[in-house]
Amino acid sequence: MPLEHTLLEKLSAVVGAEHVSTAAADLESHGVDEGWHEGVAPEAVVMPASTEEVAEVVRLCAAGEIPLVPFGAGTSLEGHIAALRGGISLDLSRMNAIVEVNAEDMDVRVEAGVRRLALNDYLRHEGLFFPIDPGANASIGGMAATRASGTNTVRYGTMRDAVMGLTAVLGTGEVVHTGSRARKSSAGYDLTRLLVGSEGTLGVITEVSLRVHGIPEVIGSATASFGDVAGAVGTVIELIQLGIPVARVELLDRAMVAAVNAYADLQLPVQPLLLLEFHGGPDAVAEQSHTVAQLAARHGGTGWQEATSTEERNALWRARHDAYYAGLATRPGMKGVSTDVCVPISALAGQIDAAVTDIAETGLTAPIVGHVGDGNFHVLIMFDPDDAEEKAAALAFHRRLVERGLAAGGTCTGEHGIGYGKLPFMKVEHDATALAAMRAIKHGLDPAGILNPGKTVPAG
Amino acid sequence: MPLEHTLLEKLSAVVGAEHVSTAAADLESHGVDEGWHEGVAPEAVVMPASTEEVAEVVRLCAAGEIPLVPFGAGTSLEGHIAALRGGISLDLSRMNAIVEVNAEDMDVRVEAGVRRLALNDYLRHEGLFFPIDPGANASIGGMAATRASGTNTVRYGTMRDAVMGLTAVLGTGEVVHTGSRARKSSAGYDLTRLLVGSEGTLGVITEVSLRVHGIPEVIGSATASFGDVAGAVGTVIELIQLGIPVARVELLDRAMVAAVNAYADLQLPVQPLLLLEFHGGPDAVAEQSHTVAQLAARHGGTGWQEATSTEERNALWRARHDAYYAGLATRPGMKGVSTDVCVPISALAGQIDAAVTDIAETGLTAPIVGHVGDGNFHVLIMFDPDDAEEKAAALAFHRRLVERGLAAGGTCTGEHGIGYGKLPFMKVEHDATALAAMRAIKHGLDPAGILNPGKTVPAG
Repeated sequence: MPLEHTLLEKLSAVVGAEHVSTAAADLESHGVDEGWHEGVAPEAVVMPASTEEVAEVVRLCAAGEIPLVPFGAGTSLEGHIAALRGGISLDLSRMNAIVEVNAEDMDVRVEAGVRRLALNDYLRHEGLFFPIDPGANASIGGMAATRASGTNTVRYGTMRDAVMGLTAVLGTGEVVHTGSRARKSSAGYDLTRLLVGSEGTLGVITEVSLRVHGIPEVIGSATASFGDVAGAVGTVIELIQLGIPVARVELLDRAMVAAVNAYADLQLPVQPLLLLEFHGGPDAVAEQSHTVAQLAARHGGTGWQEATSTEERNALWRARHDAYYAGLATRPGMKGVSTDVCVPISALAGQIDAAVTDIAETGLTAPIVGHVGDGNFHVLIMFDPDDAEEKAAALAFHRRLVERGLAAGGTCTGEHGIGYGKLPFMKVEHDATALAAMRAIKHGLDPAGILNPGKTVPAG
Repeated sequence: MPLEHTLLEKLSAVVGAEHVSTAAADLESHGVDEGWHEGVAPEAVVMPASTEEVAEVVRLCAAGEIPLVPFGAGTSLEGHIAALRGGISLDLSRMNAIVEVNAEDMDVRVEAGVRRLALNDYLRHEGLFFPIDPGANASIGGMAATRASGTNTVRYGTMRDAVMGLTAVLGTGEVVHTGSRARKSSAGYDLTRLLVGSEGTLGVITEVSLRVHGIPEVIGSATASFGDVAGAVGTVIELIQLGIPVARVELLDRAMVAAVNAYADLQLPVQPLLLLEFHGGPDAVAEQSHTVAQLAARHGGTGWQEATSTEERNALWRARHDAYYAGLATRPGMKGVSTDVCVPISALAGQIDAAVTDIAETGLTAPIVGHVGDGNFHVLIMFDPDDAEEKAAALAFHRRLVERGLAAGGTCTGEHGIGYGKLPFMKVEHDATALAAMRAIKHGLDPAGILNPGKTVPAG
């Protein structure tokens, strides 16, 4: 059922005609994200400039029962922005103001469309940084909506921890303000944490208050290679038990080290690799690095190498951040499925070993990187989109991977979210009462069911 | 309307007759907490032994529309356990099993009735500790329900951060399991964080999974005195900006230092005092202590004193933990109102100065302690319960204190919760849409409205 012309006119009256598009290219680009799932184009793209405009758009959609899909930067991976039931893509990229920076309290307030790299460019001049770093240059609103994280989580937490409060428009078109500028509160239900990770299904996030951090006095970086994944993970388990406040600790499996070497012209030993970063004062960083070097040696680590210059350190971390592209480059023209299982750390080595064995037996190309301090790892499964058999094998492997992770007490997604791509796993991960509770909450905040329908919570 | 005899018989059939009490002493002790608010006794106390028994009790109450108030240790401060509408107190103290300890992953699972000191006694043998330390020896279920915190929050977070997942019985009698053993997840709505802080109004928490931490290699402690509160707070703002991972940083105002000196026979200078604790390796602790000593000096701090022995350190922290009783001891026989405002740290010195001025002008005795790293401070207002005028003055001061805190972007409660004592402040702190959203969630999870009625969210 196409949108009525009168609705488009009303939307134009709210945001300005030049900010409503039905051009084919706009529709297509707004329905497909960076993942492997089929995109579905919306029927119109609407670009509001303020919370008030968002509220008016939502009210118009609610009155007409028109689906509405919030759009940040389009960098999600699980089909979050596909307009499964048609309707409107609400593109928040015009809402890109940094509203306030409170340097003394180390908190900021931004509009939802601000991108994370732009925020960090801005904060650098204040001696501050925002640590959450998914691979993509995502929008802050999108990162809040998917409960994103990245490589700094082991020390700085995820968006769950970073978001202090937000402004959102509920499915009724009402504007809600959650949280406060206090660092903690026991005043009522935690609406902030409820909206974080709700993927635009409970409200359209329009502004976000974030905790940020002081740029560390010293940043140290180091690598170590291991004979097996168990040695690398054992090192990390012990360093966490010792309370060493490591800032980053990333694992690359043998296949990913080979891919990164080829892609970035590096000569890392083709063995499981730990890539570490330490933040703090000079003595603390030296002590952390020294202690972890000893732990690594005890777990069979070799070739402990501290990056001595900023250039060296940046080259190493660039290699890590390029891992996704490095992996894809091993089989040009392929599609990549980035899996996202997260398990208790004690189970991580076994899970990765099982994955590597399964990959070999299935005959796939699938290098692995892991945020090993969180127990979160990504298998980058490559498949030929024109080869139905290979695609089926890739997806069957993915299902086995998730099932192994859930059996170990883990989750099907550590940081990418559900969208519609992981919807089937929700029924495996959560019990029926939890899903019913989620549906009840959805009904309470979006009674017409217009907000990003078909995502996050499977129908009952 | 008294409980029907048949209901008591049915409850007895579920939990055993010896675990249902209508004895006056039991009723009275279960309706009044450690705060200053009027208690209201329930009509029966029911002591289940398992989640299944809780679920059966809730189903019986839902069928009869009988109010049900979960009870942990009774150490709340805002009338959380008062049976405002009568009904049953559901005492979970028999559910005190430590279900599992996963030392490698540093997580534990406990039944809701486990007390925090008992948990730490148990964990000590594993080299682990659970950092959240409200003054009282509260139950873990109660601490989750009130989103409690304490002196370690600046480094280790609050119950919001510590709870990885939980088992709860919703108002329908259905059992829900939330979270997983993974350290993060993006799989659907965050029901864990929704139940944490919901004060028994959305579900009865029966089991809790917690993140715990390794006992630090070295614990260092230090004190410094300041000419004014601004110097102390300025020191803390700067140390947080520098990313120094201080474990504890507590402020005592002049009046509280005097009270503690008298109570614990100490000779601390009667000036605003910072009490600090550092956790880490020997070099990191030495570096942190050294850096903070310099910061303190720069902000006018004097008498920097490091505790050199465990005994000295314990004596200092015992004095801090006894502050509440030390304060009460300054006016024997008085009631104490412990306020709980939490503000952005940059506003803290101004808020405390305004409070001290207001206290003097109002003619109250009211020493202050603060978790200054979180911006959270407690004014312990003493009043004579038989003096209506003094009581009214104390409560009027409290209202002004909260209003100043909210105006500065803070919250009316950093860690004590709402109960019914702070209910009027909810309408000041949250907008109407937020309160309506909370009511919609309440209706979704507890449609009969039997769970702890009259608490947390004001009626519409």
